[in-house]
Amino acid sequence: MTTQAALSRLSLNQRTTASWSLPEAIKGCVDAGLGAIGIWREQLAEAGLEKACRLVADSGLRVSSLCRGGFFTTADSQEAQTAEARNREAIDEAAALDAATLVLVPGGLPSGDRDLQAARDRATRAIERLVPYASERGVTLGIEPMNPIYAADRGVISTLAQALDIAERFEAREVGVVVDTFHLWWEPGIAEQVQRAAERIVSYQVSDWITPLPADTLLARGMMGDGHIDFTSFTSSVVKAGYRGDIEVEIFNADLWAAPPAEVVNTMAGRYLQLVQPYLDE
Amino acid sequence: MTTQAALSRLSLNQRTTASWSLPEAIKGCVDAGLGAIGIWREQLAEAGLEKACRLVADSGLRVSSLCRGGFFTTADSQEAQTAEARNREAIDEAAALDAATLVLVPGGLPSGDRDLQAARDRATRAIERLVPYASERGVTLGIEPMNPIYAADRGVISTLAQALDIAERFEAREVGVVVDTFHLWWEPGIAEQVQRAAERIVSYQVSDWITPLPADTLLARGMMGDGHIDFTSFTSSVVKAGYRGDIEVEIFNADLWAAPPAEVVNTMAGRYLQLVQPYLDE
Repeated sequence: MTTQAALSRLSLNQRTTASWSLPEAIKGCVDAGLGAIGIWREQLAEAGLEKACRLVADSGLRVSSLCRGGFFTTADSQEAQTAEARNREAIDEAAALDAATLVLVPGGLPSGDRDLQAARDRATRAIERLVPYASERGVTLGIEPMNPIYAADRGVISTLAQALDIAERFEAREVGVVVDTFHLWWEPGIAEQVQRAAERIVSYQVSDWITPLPADTLLARGMMGDGHIDFTSFTSSVVKAGYRGDIEVEIFNADLWAAPPAEVVNTMAGRYLQLVQPYLDE
Repeated sequence: MTTQAALSRLSLNQRTTASWSLPEAIKGCVDAGLGAIGIWREQLAEAGLEKACRLVADSGLRVSSLCRGGFFTTADSQEAQTAEARNREAIDEAAALDAATLVLVPGGLPSGDRDLQAARDRATRAIERLVPYASERGVTLGIEPMNPIYAADRGVISTLAQALDIAERFEAREVGVVVDTFHLWWEPGIAEQVQRAAERIVSYQVSDWITPLPADTLLARGMMGDGHIDFTSFTSSVVKAGYRGDIEVEIFNADLWAAPPAEVVNTMAGRYLQLVQPYLDE
């Protein structure tokens, strides 16, 4: 297999090269021979949606995900309306970019609020309210279960099993799940849950769990191979479940952000070819 | 209710006042009017088992737990034998102290090993091997499921559901579970799992999940009330499950360790009276 063919399902999530603008990231993906890009809304806003759509079309890249909608756990009805409006904008953008999914990060506990179950229920109802709007525009919402390390401040949905309990209330084309190795590698029974997810897997994201955990836990992810995750078995499991989409590398890490982005992309591609790509064949 | 009666089920886990020797901690508990103590093996060794047993008997305190056995995920047979011998010593100590349980912290992935399932299986088999020895000495082993933040380096058993799947292979008097709010507050369906645990709950440990998480994640626990955990509903759930034992406060935190231990115990007792004790009535 040529290197180009081998990299055809690799996607750069923009967060891995945080200093690049969207035009720079698109060029970086093309230069490295990748097949896709995961776009962040902040950089998308800087570039402008129309220009971004043109750049993406010209590049030939697929948009493996738009990051991110969600953050809808508030108990305040005014804030909930604002969050819903922002999510509708994100859905419009995902539709314009023909993104494989809009990633939904649920959000954490509101300040001073300790009722986790109620926050989870609000997230579920917020998803429910978004489904018709997304469905009309052909956008599949992707619930991202997050490592419990973020349950308080970022993502109240903590396991793939829990994300599937919510997603399965809807059609698979309406609501799917994001399977991220960093978030889910520890989940008991994860292989069974990945099989259960099957056609609902709308994004497969890879990064490693490293120890000791960096001081800022938001930036705690590592490059594949630097940590404790077995990408062979995880990837085989995702493939066995029928996933045929792109493999996105999303790494929040201060050291990587300080390095030249093109070098980071090269390292990422190398690790992908070594640790992930060989296990994509059925 | 008198303060003394109100504190009768409160236990100081020695890790909360790390600078105190065992004799100092015992005196600190008595001075503060607590009913029990959770003893650590390191400080026990410094004091000597015989002296420790005498001091405990004289104090009138119950030993709510001995911390800790476990750390038996190694794939090396020589290391596994060493770990088993250490655990037998710990069982002997727990029997001598009449501890309510010997807390088992499973241990993490061996260095360079990425097979989490295999490490979990080895932990299960190690528990199985210890049961007859513990049972003969009247010691109940307490499996401690740990927050997934520690799955790689400390505790491969990550949920109460998973701990119960293991414990239920044995009699309840042989193997129970440690229910620690810091480790389990995020677990989907935790209330149902606590009910399922019922008479297998051998220790209820309380501390809070605080954000931002301190830089050293091992020391990331907070005093009850400083973080995101709802102690009202958690405690009510544990009481409803039938737990009648001591409530142990185990907080690994560098700021607390730097404070005068007696002050820490006073703060702990105050928070307990405010956030936990009122919910112990059926």
